[in-house]
Parts: sequence; structure tokens; C-alpha cells
Amino acid sequence: MKNKHIITALVRNHSGVLTRISGLFARRCFNIDSLAVCATENPELSRMTIVSDTNDGLAEQMVKQLDKLCDVIKVCELGGGRVSRELLLVKIRLTAAQRPEIESTCNIYKAKLVDLSPESVIVELSGEPNKLDALINILKPYGIIELARTGVTALERGGKAINE
Amino acid sequence: MKNKHIITALVRNHSGVLTRISGLFARRCFNIDSLAVCATENPELSRMTIVSDTNDGLAEQMVKQLDKLCDVIKVCELGGGRVSRELLLVKIRLTAAQRPEIESTCNIYKAKLVDLSPESVIVELSGEPNKLDALINILKPYGIIELARTGVTALERGGKAINE
Repeated sequence: MKNKHIITALVRNHSGVLTRISGLFARRCFNIDSLAVCATENPELSRMTIVSDTNDGLAEQMVKQLDKLCDVIKVCELGGGRVSRELLLVKIRLTAAQRPEIESTCNIYKAKLVDLSPESVIVELSGEPNKLDALINILKPYGIIELARTGVTALERGGKAINE
Repeated sequence: MKNKHIITALVRNHSGVLTRISGLFARRCFNIDSLAVCATENPELSRMTIVSDTNDGLAEQMVKQLDKLCDVIKVCELGGGRVSRELLLVKIRLTAAQRPEIESTCNIYKAKLVDLSPESVIVELSGEPNKLDALINILKPYGIIELARTGVTALERGGKAINE
């Protein structure tokens, strides 16, 4: 049975690390839903958050494979006790007459209108990925011009870091 | 002179695409600050947002190189007329006595407290990357246990999509 798995890794901030990791995914046919790579509080390390809709066995195997790479300092799967967040920017077609409708939708979702043109708006929302999916579904009938998501980032709840 | 460049690309949602693109970056010694890869409204396409602190010539060259890859449907650099956003989760050490201080900081930044343990909190903030940097600097004295950022995602302002 497939499930959403969130794998987080601290990796060395070298050029080439991403190639080795994505090469590993391609060889093992490990499909990725989203990937976010960013700097951390330590300039020598990057943090990578991988989301994959896969079965438990393959996710576990992938964590073990990543752990073998010398550029990977620490890798683990984040379980239920995690905070996961993603950010969405979506541009939709909109006439001036439809604006009150969209403003009300944004209020309900606590989304923001961040750009306005005569025929379009950009809506910004952050939250759990399924909240973003729900807003996208509601906005579809207006006509989605384009959208950009950051991919998920996540931390384990409580006072520990993954590399402790 | 180095500048922050934001490159956005629509790429085919195949395994192996990421390897080819990251391989290109490594060969050309093109350093990445952040990378966000995510699904789009079209299940066959992914959207990739790359941020790099580099000179204008190298950024332009990279856009041209990416454009040559057959998996890249459309690629461009987003100029000044863009909306760019990032999301931050940061876990800091915190005693109960320091909570009012943090609540006030969160109010000023419109950040959220999303987890609480006896000795720590997780703060969530979304916004322009330099706003996130500013909050991290303010939180440093408390002791950052770990942090995770999504990397930047961005859309051009106005009613057009990049693949129009």
C-alpha cells in the first residue's frame, strides 16, 4: 500500500551532491513528489526534504541507501509527530466582478492576494499540502494560468534535532 | 558582480530529469542556493525554481543550457516584476519564562508558533527570503536547534504564464 513518506536529510553543501542523490533515485526508480533543498544554520550543510508516495518498504530502503552516501550526514524518515508545511502561489483568471468571491475564499483559507492585474490575481497560501490541494480544487473553475509550489519542508516535533 | 537570480523551469515529470539538470549544474560549477521541485496543474510537468547568487552572465548562460535539454519545456529568469516566497520552520530553545518575548516577536513578523515542548518551540514564517533571514538572526541568541526552509518559489506578476 502506498503512503506519503517524508524523508529529511542533512547533506554536505558541495556541488555534485544533488547529482549523486538524484542518480540514486533514478537508478532505483524511486519517484519523488516534491524536493526542497535549502541552506541551514550551518553554512557547510544543506537540508533536503523529499516527499514520495510509495510503499513503506521502498521508503525504508531509500533511507538506508541515502545513509550509505558519504555526503549524507544524517537521514531519517519523519513519522506522525512532525510539522510539515508547503507554500503555494497560484495565478488565476479573474474579472473585477469576481473579486468579492475570491476575497471571501481567501478569508476562509487565510490565503493572501499578492498580485492583481486587470484579468488575473495571484493567491498565496501556506499550510499542510492537503490544504493547498483543496484550495487549488476550489480555484480550478476560474481557470488556473499557472502555479508554483515550494514542495514540503518538515521538522520533527519536540526539542531534538535530527542530527543529535 | 554577484546577484540573486531566480530561474524557473517547466520540466517533464520523468525520473532522470533531475539527474540531468543537476549534472549540468555540477559540470558548469553553477552553485545553487536553493532548489524547489514540485507538481503543477499538469500532471505531466513539474516546476523547478532555482536560486543562485551568481553573476548575470553565468545565469544567462545557465538558462540557455537548460533550454537545450529536451526535458525542459520552458525556462526563463524571473526579473524584478515577480512575486517570490519561501517558508521557514525553525526550532529554538525556549524556557516558559521567555514565551511572552517570542510571542511578541512572532506578532511583529506575523509568524506562527506551531509546536511547543517544555524546552523548545517551532516557529513558522513565510515571506520574501530576506524577511526569513531577518527572523533567523533575531532568533539566533535563543539557540537554534534546527531549521528547515522550503527554498524559494516564484511567479511573474501579471496575467501571463511562462509557457505562453
